Amino acid sequence: MNALRLASLNENHLARTIVSVGDVRFGQDFVVIAGPCSVESEEQTLKTAREVKAAGAHMLRGGAFKPRTSPYDFQGLGLQGLKILEKARQATGLPIVTEVTDPRDVSWVSEYADVLQIGTRNMQNFSLLKEVGKADRPVLLKRGMYSTLNEWLNCAEYILAAGNPDVILCERGIRTFETYTRNTLDLSIVPCVKETSHLPVIVDPSHGTGRLSIIEPMSLAAMAAGADGIMVEVHCRPAEAVCDRDQAMPPKMFGGLMKKLNLLRSSMGGFNHEFMH
Amino acid sequence: MNALRLASLNENHLARTIVSVGDVRFGQDFVVIAGPCSVESEEQTLKTAREVKAAGAHMLRGGAFKPRTSPYDFQGLGLQGLKILEKARQATGLPIVTEVTDPRDVSWVSEYADVLQIGTRNMQNFSLLKEVGKADRPVLLKRGMYSTLNEWLNCAEYILAAGNPDVILCERGIRTFETYTRNTLDLSIVPCVKETSHLPVIVDPSHGTGRLSIIEPMSLAAMAAGADGIMVEVHCRPAEAVCDRDQAMPPKMFGGLMKKLNLLRSSMGGFNHEFMH
Amino acid sequence: MNALRLASLNENHLARTIVSVGDVRFGQDFVVIAGPCSVESEEQTLKTAREVKAAGAHMLRGGAFKPRTSPYDFQGLGLQGLKILEKARQATGLPIVTEVTDPRDVSWVSEYADVLQIGTRNMQNFSLLKEVGKADRPVLLKRGMYSTLNEWLNCAEYILAAGNPDVILCERGIRTFETYTRNTLDLSIVPCVKETSHLPVIVDPSHGTGRLSIIEPMSLAAMAAGADGIMVEVHCRPAEAVCDRDQAMPPKMFGGLMKKLNLLRSSMGGFNHEFMH
Amino acid sequence: MNALRLASLNENHLARTIVSVGDVRFGQDFVVIAGPCSVESEEQTLKTAREVKAAGAHMLRGGAFKPRTSPYDFQGLGLQGLKILEKARQATGLPIVTEVTDPRDVSWVSEYADVLQIGTRNMQNFSLLKEVGKADRPVLLKRGMYSTLNEWLNCAEYILAAGNPDVILCERGIRTFETYTRNTLDLSIVPCVKETSHLPVIVDPSHGTGRLSIIEPMSLAAMAAGADGIMVEVHCRPAEAVCDRDQAMPPKMFGGLMKKLNLLRSSMGGFNHEFMH
Repeated sequence: MNALRLASLNENHLARTIVSVGDVRFGQDFVVIAGPCSVESEEQTLKTAREVKAAGAHMLRGGAFKPRTSPYDFQGLGLQGLKILEKARQATGLPIVTEVTDPRDVSWVSEYADVLQIGTRNMQNFSLLKEVGKADRPVLLKRGMYSTLNEWLNCAEYILAAGNPDVILCERGIRTFETYTRNTLDLSIVPCVKETSHLPVIVDPSHGTGRLSIIEPMSLAAMAAGADGIMVEVHCRPAEAVCDRDQAMPPKMFGGLMKKLNLLRSSMGGFNHEFMH
Repeated sequence: MNALRLASLNENHLARTIVSVGDVRFGQDFVVIAGPCSVESEEQTLKTAREVKAAGAHMLRGGAFKPRTSPYDFQGLGLQGLKILEKARQATGLPIVTEVTDPRDVSWVSEYADVLQIGTRNMQNFSLLKEVGKADRPVLLKRGMYSTLNEWLNCAEYILAAGNPDVILCERGIRTFETYTRNTLDLSIVPCVKETSHLPVIVDPSHGTGRLSIIEPMSLAAMAAGADGIMVEVHCRPAEAVCDRDQAMPPKMFGGLMKKLNLLRSSMGGFNHEFMH
Repeated sequence: MNALRLASLNENHLARTIVSVGDVRFGQDFVVIAGPCSVESEEQTLKTAREVKAAGAHMLRGGAFKPRTSPYDFQGLGLQGLKILEKARQATGLPIVTEVTDPRDVSWVSEYADVLQIGTRNMQNFSLLKEVGKADRPVLLKRGMYSTLNEWLNCAEYILAAGNPDVILCERGIRTFETYTRNTLDLSIVPCVKETSHLPVIVDPSHGTGRLSIIEPMSLAAMAAGADGIMVEVHCRPAEAVCDRDQAMPPKMFGGLMKKLNLLRSSMGGFNHEFMH
Repeated sequence: MNALRLASLNENHLARTIVSVGDVRFGQDFVVIAGPCSVESEEQTLKTAREVKAAGAHMLRGGAFKPRTSPYDFQGLGLQGLKILEKARQATGLPIVTEVTDPRDVSWVSEYADVLQIGTRNMQNFSLLKEVGKADRPVLLKRGMYSTLNEWLNCAEYILAAGNPDVILCERGIRTFETYTRNTLDLSIVPCVKETSHLPVIVDPSHGTGRLSIIEPMSLAAMAAGADGIMVEVHCRPAEAVCDRDQAMPPKMFGGLMKKLNLLRSSMGGFNHEFMH
């Protein structure tokens, strides 16, 4: 790990970082973020928000700016989407995490978002990193789908060095030769982050696998590997989702997942990973 | 999955396969295989075998034929190694899994091994697969470090088609661009195997990560993901290990891992993965 | 290739695109761009510019904004660097290609640059793509180190759809498991671009390999594969280069390369690749 | 490059190896090997052999033992296929290269083959490597689709260390995330081999790309990169090919390729790559 000063777990920073968002404590609690890939309408977003809240989720996710492979695909509702997210927060009390993609948007998006997300394609968008480094909102930094641990931590370093200490890392799958899954979810990066950095790290099994059927086992595995939380795509009507339909989880299935996570969590109270001491 | 007949979970094969080795049931119990990377001496092997047995391991692993990158590296003790493994089985009662690398060796190695292992470099050594397909021993088929799910299952198909129904799959990490870990352990393949095949699948977190410090969290994650067992490299004196020293686990640490696995296992009794029904 | 309208070689766009920069014709001539990785000083830049001009280069490259893995590495001279590049153009007549990394910089950087470069880390920085799509400068779009052909062409589509028809693609190596080279230069993408798109495509063998010793053979291979040009890092004193020292070519070696390229070019006049008709 | 003694270009072995097969000199001439993926019938093989001979090929390729992903795919004609290849050699004078996949077959296959090929899936089949290391036939060692340069050269070392000095390396594409091509042909490995080893190295653009349309440009690029030859799949009736149909080249197209290679070759007589001195 070359030249990491602020993100490293070293003599200068011995304690693990706790990032607070409302009542939620990343790095202390196991945080579950759920919600739709993109904000499509007020009805869809509020309905989904209420259902994930009822099932026990701690935060709401939802994209208003969508980085899409093709310029002809749905690009998100923008400001209108952010206003819908604001209503969802008022209705449920769930803090909001939403993606920001342009340095010019950081300050005004911060008025709507509780946590600013940097997506996988922008992990090394250094102008954007420096800008969120000046914001007064925690940053959820997704791993680039092509990124090594060292490169990822250096991107966190850009944010920390700009003055923002509240960075949450998020593993979301890397690109490999395997095509059965959309990406290869690299759960081993979780303990690797824990032994090299003090930052909290969560896992996105939805983008990480792209297959609804395996999101549950990978969520449980993420917890067992020591992750500080997960971020799951839930849609009130998956078949109608505008993007990432194959990985959208229906609310009822999400409720079942929450129950299993709680069971697993209670058994893991019996021990701690060595590196978490 | 093209043309898989025998390995597929389909109308011809609805029930999950249980592979029995002595009292061990792959596909039913969570099986822990432990032991040294290679058989170095009688003392080292018996000492390690007794320690993993005491800690609760169900089977002993140990290599007598070692496929090594360089021809000048230690290539294993061969027949002498197999005889040492036989003594270890007599001393501990643990069944033996050991690698076979040459079709000419299959019949006589079967006299010493309870389970024949096919290593990652030989996954598509079809002559060898056909030969173990004719053996009366279960086969532990490691995933090629470059192999897709489809190719891996087709290799199992070679063995099944040759007449041997007892195949245990073993994920051991794939090759990616990440260098912090030796390979990238692909735990998502576990539920993918479960939804496409009836064969049991275990995980090797030692080769899969190459880092001692993260073997424990990845073992727990493997269980949570629904794996049917793990295979861990344990050495009575890791610092003296002839090969793969960086991932050799000391027996005491292995004992701690077994305790956590048992705790986790009991909590998971409270639920089953959907695909395990 | 999903949904490509403007970048595709199809019934709507049968002719290959020619991008003119001064006297240079991308898609018609074999264009050689050379110069330092980053602008370090006026003396270094002008000296290097004069030497590559003397050797026969057609354009000058040089970075004023450097996207670096670590925030503590040299980040480029910014505006001062652009002014130095302007002097180099005045001194040599060579048009300038330089990277832009922030959408807020596009309009004023365009006053100094003849071609705007989008780097590999920003290939999917869609805000930036849309902004250069509105600029009146040709864009050199590097392939993401993790990018498929389809994704790359879709990024070109973002620029074309925003109104800028002048896109030059640049292969610069993809990320694989091989560590002997810095990246794996994917020359096969050159004919693949030619059969799916009408846009010109050049090759960067410096970043693509990261090894000075193999830049020459890979440059010749790029030409033989049908590339429309190359971009090579040349430094007047490689041992003193602030970044990417291992791949910086000394001017004399660059002169030798130009001679071989000219020899090869003349022999290739004897035939055309089918897809170039 | 760890522990390479015999394959290294070092003080013990300063001269490049020349491997002679009949009149052909690998490492001196540019050798073109052509022929069908698999021997399907006497008529198909002899017709194809005569056509590639007429076009100027130096050797004939053809598989009698085919390593196939699925056990239900055509596995080759075996001994019957070898006898057909023998007739093709008698009819055309072209030496034969054919794959051997089982150590038990090496001695009798050597009676039919002029060069023994080790396929990509068997690159690290060390029993097989040791056996061809004892044969009195040159060995064509394909790079594993997952193999680093270091691992590949170590496999050559297994053969050299067993007593056979005549090894020809063959790049055939590595596995990456790109799906437009079947594999990613890594031409940069050619000069990398040249600077680390004295062994000749050829390129297989057919398997390396899996796309007929780009085999020609990649063949020319292979020559320009300094390769010692190419191996191309040619079939007298590509549409009827039993395997790898999408990359089978019709004889007429192969004739056109040979003409371009000769043109390019003559221009390259004007210079030599530095590392070839």
